[in-house]
Amino acid sequence: MFVNRRDVQIQWGDCDPANIVYYPRYFGMFDDSTSILFEKAGFSKQDLVHKYGLVGIPMVDTRAKFYIPSTHGDWITIETRIESIKRSSFEVKHNIYKGEDLAIEAFETRVLVGRDPNDPDKLKSAPFPPEMVTKFIGS
Amino acid sequence: MFVNRRDVQIQWGDCDPANIVYYPRYFGMFDDSTSILFEKAGFSKQDLVHKYGLVGIPMVDTRAKFYIPSTHGDWITIETRIESIKRSSFEVKHNIYKGEDLAIEAFETRVLVGRDPNDPDKLKSAPFPPEMVTKFIGS
Amino acid sequence: MFVNRRDVQIQWGDCDPANIVYYPRYFGMFDDSTSILFEKAGFSKQDLVHKYGLVGIPMVDTRAKFYIPSTHGDWITIETRIESIKRSSFEVKHNIYKGEDLAIEAFETRVLVGRDPNDPDKLKSAPFPPEMVTKFIGS
Amino acid sequence: MFVNRRDVQIQWGDCDPANIVYYPRYFGMFDDSTSILFEKAGFSKQDLVHKYGLVGIPMVDTRAKFYIPSTHGDWITIETRIESIKRSSFEVKHNIYKGEDLAIEAFETRVLVGRDPNDPDKLKSAPFPPEMVTKFIGS
Repeated sequence: MFVNRRDVQIQWGDCDPANIVYYPRYFGMFDDSTSILFEKAGFSKQDLVHKYGLVGIPMVDTRAKFYIPSTHGDWITIETRIESIKRSSFEVKHNIYKGEDLAIEAFETRVLVGRDPNDPDKLKSAPFPPEMVTKFIGS
Repeated sequence: MFVNRRDVQIQWGDCDPANIVYYPRYFGMFDDSTSILFEKAGFSKQDLVHKYGLVGIPMVDTRAKFYIPSTHGDWITIETRIESIKRSSFEVKHNIYKGEDLAIEAFETRVLVGRDPNDPDKLKSAPFPPEMVTKFIGS
Repeated sequence: MFVNRRDVQIQWGDCDPANIVYYPRYFGMFDDSTSILFEKAGFSKQDLVHKYGLVGIPMVDTRAKFYIPSTHGDWITIETRIESIKRSSFEVKHNIYKGEDLAIEAFETRVLVGRDPNDPDKLKSAPFPPEMVTKFIGS
Repeated sequence: MFVNRRDVQIQWGDCDPANIVYYPRYFGMFDDSTSILFEKAGFSKQDLVHKYGLVGIPMVDTRAKFYIPSTHGDWITIETRIESIKRSSFEVKHNIYKGEDLAIEAFETRVLVGRDPNDPDKLKSAPFPPEMVTKFIGS
């Protein structure tokens, strides 16, 4: 299973008047982490668009459970993997660590989409390319 | 049960290169909606801080399920209520409509917190004031 | 000259640990205000894209001068107008009031752009449609 | 003169439907860059608050000139320095490079502030500590 870990420093502008991270900012960090997972696996968003003819990987269902707060200056580690893939949908898991401790768990169900050939303003689910399945999940 | 409905127009900057709302932006809208629910009920964030000595209502667990995408110029209606209250934690539900259709459902578990008297840099859960319980849930 | 005024309430998530608006958020509000000015004038972003074949109105040069801070719960009024139009570039001015007082001034130079016919991945400046000039500036 | 350079990768969520960076996001990157300049110089935001008794370094006046657009996947280099310091205000300059090319220039006038001793809800300018002046500008 392909896993990416990256370290992120919480910035002043990520925090709210309670002096902790304003939680919607975490979802931005998680979205970046999923994109970076794809990029590290050899499938950048630019590749998805230009090589595979896709539009994106929109969110269908996401959940996050917050155990330990963070503030500006803190470093967190975001560990991201794809846990399963169906025809066009897939499950992403982020484990966020603060030092050794699990600070947040986040879950995503996303779907690969392209343009609907019958109406290019509409999005349509697209099947997962087999080389991506192999890379993320193994064969 | 106290419910607030508000109409929000999706803006250009809410959308990503797929021309649909970048989903972390929805969590900002939902957080605003929870704050506005409190304000409409008579308990603004400024009141929480200055009158009740609280620090905020941080997120413990949140989930959103996305059924219908939106793009810039679209109007959505966010309908928000508190579904239950325990000692210091509470459950918020947002139903997001696009016209008549349910476009998104979002769920929040939050907690009322104040400063820890033993360490003002730390947060500590605080009991729900009874007048808030009565206002949000009824008696 | 066509002017739009809109009232915006500062939200918790707009503020930083100093308990005042995190200034990059203002630029989001100003960008929304420019889009809404166009929409109120009869030229929504969707129209720009689908009716006029444009891609957007990207920023060339912007400046903001901050005189009075605001915090969550405060209401501000954003007053927006286009002050001048050249072939494809134009000057936007936002005056932000807090009550009667001028709280912020913001200046924008933007340009109308479409896709470059020789390379659809590139942007190219586009001439201002005369009906827009008439609407925004007068004849 | 103390200079910090850092590389930032543009992410999907930084971009708008025109497929280029939504410019308010740049101001977030610049604010992070100023904070990181302070931190690298030995004065983190946490130090400003806890060691120096300050509240922050709010923006008084900022301008950005955009020469070259960027999209998701692109890397930019943000080079940040403090160009001059008065009693409590200071000028920051960011040069943003895309490869060898100057893509954006940004200018900031900020001020060091603490709590007003007569009204802790108000902010008051604070003199620049001499060791910061020496570090940023030289003696």
